[in-house]
Amino acid sequence: MGDDDEHNSSSTDEGRKEVDIYPLSCYYFGSKEAIVFKDETVSDRITRMKSNYAAYGLRTSVEAVLLVELFKHPHLLLLQLNNSIFKLPGGRLRPGETDIDGLRRKLSNKLSASRDGNEAEWEVGECLGMWWRHDFETLLCPYLPPTVKKPKCTKLFLVRLPESRKFIVPENLKLLAVPLSQVHENHKTYGTVISGVPQLLSKYSINIIDI
Amino acid sequence: MGDDDEHNSSSTDEGRKEVDIYPLSCYYFGSKEAIVFKDETVSDRITRMKSNYAAYGLRTSVEAVLLVELFKHPHLLLLQLNNSIFKLPGGRLRPGETDIDGLRRKLSNKLSASRDGNEAEWEVGECLGMWWRHDFETLLCPYLPPTVKKPKCTKLFLVRLPESRKFIVPENLKLLAVPLSQVHENHKTYGTVISGVPQLLSKYSINIIDI
Repeated sequence: MGDDDEHNSSSTDEGRKEVDIYPLSCYYFGSKEAIVFKDETVSDRITRMKSNYAAYGLRTSVEAVLLVELFKHPHLLLLQLNNSIFKLPGGRLRPGETDIDGLRRKLSNKLSASRDGNEAEWEVGECLGMWWRHDFETLLCPYLPPTVKKPKCTKLFLVRLPESRKFIVPENLKLLAVPLSQVHENHKTYGTVISGVPQLLSKYSINIIDI
Repeated sequence: MGDDDEHNSSSTDEGRKEVDIYPLSCYYFGSKEAIVFKDETVSDRITRMKSNYAAYGLRTSVEAVLLVELFKHPHLLLLQLNNSIFKLPGGRLRPGETDIDGLRRKLSNKLSASRDGNEAEWEVGECLGMWWRHDFETLLCPYLPPTVKKPKCTKLFLVRLPESRKFIVPENLKLLAVPLSQVHENHKTYGTVISGVPQLLSKYSINIIDI
């Protein structure tokens, strides 16, 4: 639809963005040594965030939206921790690190054979959306809350996968392909950020490539 | 945030998109003759949609996201019908009409002094998202549902407002400025499409311009 737009191409180009996705069977999945998590509990995490904040100020998180095809429907790749929490692959930036460098580092750390692998292999594309929150609160907003002086930000990036690759995942994490239709508005299971991903992708034409 | 990205500028540009918004007080609001609605009831509407479908096939709807500033927070302009239903300004395309031409026509029809006014005055920008549905069902999906052969599509476009203009609204409609924070995830009051707008805007840096 809308392919008959001829005027004003600079503004309609955006509406025609495409993403090619490949069958899940094109990818190889293996495991590697477990990742050591820094915090045992939520309160440990908050303590660590506070001390990091004191040392470095606010840090941005970057997360990746990775898609594959299964049963003719786009599926989102999610990491699952302890058979419960779902996360998009990603994490916090180091002080001074760019969004793209940080996301590549995190993706290699969590999804590649070697942490020091070829990070350029990750094709980090456009920012799809951002979520903001008060310093140490859990409530997320898709806009900068009016009363917040020092917000924390999570940015989502579209990462286009090649037609084949290996995913090597720490053995204490599971990498799952979940249908967009299951994720959409399913806040309870997937949380605010993940359950909103189908909407952020809605302007893209998703092409299923048969191999 | 993210302003320190220097590599790979083609893919980070998208993450830096900006929207300038102006105070509500910069705009003039007036009224004009009521719009005649084609349907009295939902069942009238479905009957009309079916007969249109038989005559023209499926038609795309286009809707505008228009922002103003009030109390230092971005507000979304919504039309309200009968003190109840909220709608983004827009409507269905005519057969063969482009997204941009159709949206400009609808915006002039609902928000300008004259229907035949200068439609180019509306700066229709990028597509923010799309919603799909089965032919005559009301359930909306932000992805093409796998089983649907002939989906209907609603496309949302960002329309940047100039620093001043007149809005002349049919007297049976109200034009309201609603804070993004009130719209966000408020499905009950605003419906699926409108309540998702803050998330679709989240990748933009919204600049409040003081006049």
